[in-house]
Amino acid sequence: MTAPEPAFLNALKWTPDGLIPAIVQDAEAGDVLMMAWMDRDAVLRTLETGQTHFYSRSRRSSWHKGGTSGHVQHVEEIRVDCDGDVLLIRARQVGGACHEGYRSCFFRRVAPDGQLEATGAPVFDPSAIYGSG
Amino acid sequence: MTAPEPAFLNALKWTPDGLIPAIVQDAEAGDVLMMAWMDRDAVLRTLETGQTHFYSRSRRSSWHKGGTSGHVQHVEEIRVDCDGDVLLIRARQVGGACHEGYRSCFFRRVAPDGQLEATGAPVFDPSAIYGSG
Repeated sequence: MTAPEPAFLNALKWTPDGLIPAIVQDAEAGDVLMMAWMDRDAVLRTLETGQTHFYSRSRRSSWHKGGTSGHVQHVEEIRVDCDGDVLLIRARQVGGACHEGYRSCFFRRVAPDGQLEATGAPVFDPSAIYGSG
Repeated sequence: MTAPEPAFLNALKWTPDGLIPAIVQDAEAGDVLMMAWMDRDAVLRTLETGQTHFYSRSRRSSWHKGGTSGHVQHVEEIRVDCDGDVLLIRARQVGGACHEGYRSCFFRRVAPDGQLEATGAPVFDPSAIYGSG
């Protein structure tokens, strides 16, 4: 017997493709770490496992964030916006969220001259985790 | 003579509709306030004025956040994610970001029973600002 689906799922508005954007925020430092998309399956797996899962549009299936790198996100709280069309996941990030080695995917800021500049330093070496090829 | 467009605009990846999601974070408290969409015009107006502008899909034009309510967002910093397809705006919020009267649009959380529950209290009365009709 399968557990009933949580009631809040019925309050969500999905895109025509069945997706919803999910912002991940560091539950401790408050930094915004990343934004990715979830389908219904990814939301359910996130709830079941307590770790974030997202939907890959190229692979057309949900995937476990950190499943390869070990850089998982332990979910502390899920919030829903007033329109029901965006999720905010507050989580404890292991290692870094960004595949480029930074803690947050938002490591570049717009400088006064209009160029992008990196801020801070990477927290891990991506080539050591994902391979250099 | 028009000023040249900032270089970072060329690093952005827009949806087929010419939009990019923009997360707004409170520059002081760190709370995630909202997520909305920007088109190129909204990004340029945000840069020119120092206050956030977004794209309204129903009106098919950019609009000035807080133009009616006075609850503007003063931009402190714009960040771009590793894939160039999400913006993070760090801003000082006047009043509340949410049209339901809350400081953040993410004022509801998923409770242990799977229902949504409001957290905190509104910071303004929406009917006094937007009218009750």
